[in-house]
Amino acid sequence: MTKAVLGEKDLPRQWYNLNADFPTPLRPPLGPDGNPVSPDMLTPIFPMGLIEQEVSPQRWIDIPEGVLEILMKWRPTPLHRAYSLEKSLGTPARIYYKNEAVSPPGSHKPNTAVAQAWYNKQEGVKALTTETGAGQWGSALAFACAQIGLECKVFMVRISFDQKPYRKVMMKTWGADCIASPSSETNAGRAILEKMPDTPGSLGIAISEAVEAAVSDKSGSTKYALGSVLNHVMLHQTIIGLEAKKQLQAFNEKKVDVIIGCAGGGSNFAGLSFPFVADKINGAKIDIIPVEPASCPTLTKGPFVYDLGDSSGMTPLLAMYSLGHNFIPPPIHAGGLRYHGMAPMVSHAVHEGLMEPRSIHQLECYAAALTFARTEGIICAPETSHAIAAVIQEAEKAKEEGKEKVILFNMSGHGLLDLRGYEAYFNGELEDYELPQEVIEENLKELAAYPKP
Amino acid sequence: MTKAVLGEKDLPRQWYNLNADFPTPLRPPLGPDGNPVSPDMLTPIFPMGLIEQEVSPQRWIDIPEGVLEILMKWRPTPLHRAYSLEKSLGTPARIYYKNEAVSPPGSHKPNTAVAQAWYNKQEGVKALTTETGAGQWGSALAFACAQIGLECKVFMVRISFDQKPYRKVMMKTWGADCIASPSSETNAGRAILEKMPDTPGSLGIAISEAVEAAVSDKSGSTKYALGSVLNHVMLHQTIIGLEAKKQLQAFNEKKVDVIIGCAGGGSNFAGLSFPFVADKINGAKIDIIPVEPASCPTLTKGPFVYDLGDSSGMTPLLAMYSLGHNFIPPPIHAGGLRYHGMAPMVSHAVHEGLMEPRSIHQLECYAAALTFARTEGIICAPETSHAIAAVIQEAEKAKEEGKEKVILFNMSGHGLLDLRGYEAYFNGELEDYELPQEVIEENLKELAAYPKP
Repeated sequence: MTKAVLGEKDLPRQWYNLNADFPTPLRPPLGPDGNPVSPDMLTPIFPMGLIEQEVSPQRWIDIPEGVLEILMKWRPTPLHRAYSLEKSLGTPARIYYKNEAVSPPGSHKPNTAVAQAWYNKQEGVKALTTETGAGQWGSALAFACAQIGLECKVFMVRISFDQKPYRKVMMKTWGADCIASPSSETNAGRAILEKMPDTPGSLGIAISEAVEAAVSDKSGSTKYALGSVLNHVMLHQTIIGLEAKKQLQAFNEKKVDVIIGCAGGGSNFAGLSFPFVADKINGAKIDIIPVEPASCPTLTKGPFVYDLGDSSGMTPLLAMYSLGHNFIPPPIHAGGLRYHGMAPMVSHAVHEGLMEPRSIHQLECYAAALTFARTEGIICAPETSHAIAAVIQEAEKAKEEGKEKVILFNMSGHGLLDLRGYEAYFNGELEDYELPQEVIEENLKELAAYPKP
Repeated sequence: MTKAVLGEKDLPRQWYNLNADFPTPLRPPLGPDGNPVSPDMLTPIFPMGLIEQEVSPQRWIDIPEGVLEILMKWRPTPLHRAYSLEKSLGTPARIYYKNEAVSPPGSHKPNTAVAQAWYNKQEGVKALTTETGAGQWGSALAFACAQIGLECKVFMVRISFDQKPYRKVMMKTWGADCIASPSSETNAGRAILEKMPDTPGSLGIAISEAVEAAVSDKSGSTKYALGSVLNHVMLHQTIIGLEAKKQLQAFNEKKVDVIIGCAGGGSNFAGLSFPFVADKINGAKIDIIPVEPASCPTLTKGPFVYDLGDSSGMTPLLAMYSLGHNFIPPPIHAGGLRYHGMAPMVSHAVHEGLMEPRSIHQLECYAAALTFARTEGIICAPETSHAIAAVIQEAEKAKEEGKEKVILFNMSGHGLLDLRGYEAYFNGELEDYELPQEVIEENLKELAAYPKP
């Protein structure tokens, strides 16, 4: 058997909420006054259906029928055994990957985009705004809004906007507007452009612009959608890990030894891993590895602090690993991993010792992507290449140790809109960025005034 | 149920050969002397395993285990019910599509690329050459050669090479070389460049170059692979229609009324339709519609003749509908449909009255592609948009007639590498090319000297 496919009747009917099982409670987001943010303070930007999920202590949350109907267009996604990769590495490890690239926008992102669009539609919202890094999230929200019947406006980080010109065409094909961020359309964007007219932009800046664009529609019919970081986004992605568990059974695997995903904001990684984190909390021995770029080493070099989710203070303070909200990562092609912070739930799990983060430089990641393309056949997104590089490290370790480990990773997206990055790699234009410790420390100074988690 | 998925055990183990069931026999290819080409004359360019399939009268031909193992990486492909499209059209028709876009290269092409690479590898071949139009075929052969372990060189029609710069990066990611055709690497290419230095190129020219590059390796370790037109290519694609038949049963459909596919060389259309043509020969009432661009109207305006498969006489004479081997189609974005001829098996079926060809202009096709993207969610290749435009015509006809027709079409590929075409459409840069009758007649003059079918 090369891959395990499930029928639509095997699509999970509930999302899994790790917040019900954490040994210690997640720290709440804080307002500017240092007090926890109450759910009703979020109503200008999110619909109540999502706010309830954000703070829910329930372990299982029903997936609405209207969401399932759309997810079924491509879900359940296949779980593949990577026989060709294993063979080329000569490893005794059995490697599996969940293929989220088969969704129409090409990544795991529509799992939450569809849910978010649906809850907004239920509450009478007419338009959504958002930010996007590499473009996977913006494309997914554009797709979801077309499916549900909402307008959509996407602020895309300028470096990615320039590197990936066809992402905006893709979004337009689904009826959405996509503009480069920082833009002159918002106060946040104009302020940044005045200070740094040539900035490559960042997810933090783009989030500020998208939130501002939503709240400045005083009719209340425009809301904001975030593609990662928040608890409800992690929740919606758990469908990945829940399906994978069933599919590993179809391969007769009794246990998993290593779980790997790339981590920028944390959502694809959380989606695959959280259902297994529950097992780990209950005593299972699993290495759970979020992989980040060495040039944006949030989990591996950032402190666990309270920091803003965006660059200009439109969001509450979140308890997370962070490089500081003014940190602008080097312009690597894995735009989706260029985020200064990390999802509070992923951060909490790391802080609790439930995960072992790792960072890898981009040249090793592109080499891994080529190996994967020429063995398994799939051209992965530059983000996903970080997971594959770690998988290869683990498979080689299993070979050295002579252990039959079971490794599971998330093929979070394809790279068919990211071929400029591959071209730059072939042309020798890419380099590894070593991030000086003083740059990290400089950016963290501003956080001194915030409460400590 | 939104889609029918099959397990790997339901993957067909045999290809279906329509040549066993045609009411009258297919006309043979002819050599320069006007006599039928014998199988051994083809050995300089093809391996014997494929030549045997080219001339086989057997109805069912076993798919080798080594081919199945690779096809299983993405097959069986899903069959979707297009509920959202039906709803938006308000049609009583039930519309189904076979989703070949889920293959790693993004189209149906690897179905034959893998088989061709496998048979070549069995006979000791080290490298394959080929041509590509839009790039779907070149990408598929690059993918297949990486899977099987062969070198690969692709001559890409210049207009597409320029319109789709990332196709060559994709092929390189799989380890293949891709160069623009006409090139200065072959006699055929140099001769054309001298006469027409600014030519957009054509599939006919690129075929000449690829064949020349293969036969000029006197060691015999380089052979040529063709992505469409030939009988063995049609054969390999029948896996599409065979799977679709099983999947329609899963939807409880007893019969199909209309089958639609876009047709350039004919392979995706043949792959879906041939197993149903057998039913039509046996009395079933089915409209089987190959759809071509109005700017390259081979089946709808070309005569049924003997003509060359390429532009400079490297191939035998084939009995087919043709616009003349020197016809260079206007530079539409559906590069895969810019072929002067049509597969002899498809041509024969049309000539026998088993099919009802139709041509559609590109603006109508792009409008159909947008409708499809915003309803079903998938961004199709410009080639595939021709099928979708015809599906919409048929669904609207069913609405007018108030008939519950069952329409099945081939979603032959996604358009994620073709977004430049969508951009041109959004920018109002595209126009419909009316092909003057005298242009057609001028190109056909050269065929007067050839035998008549």
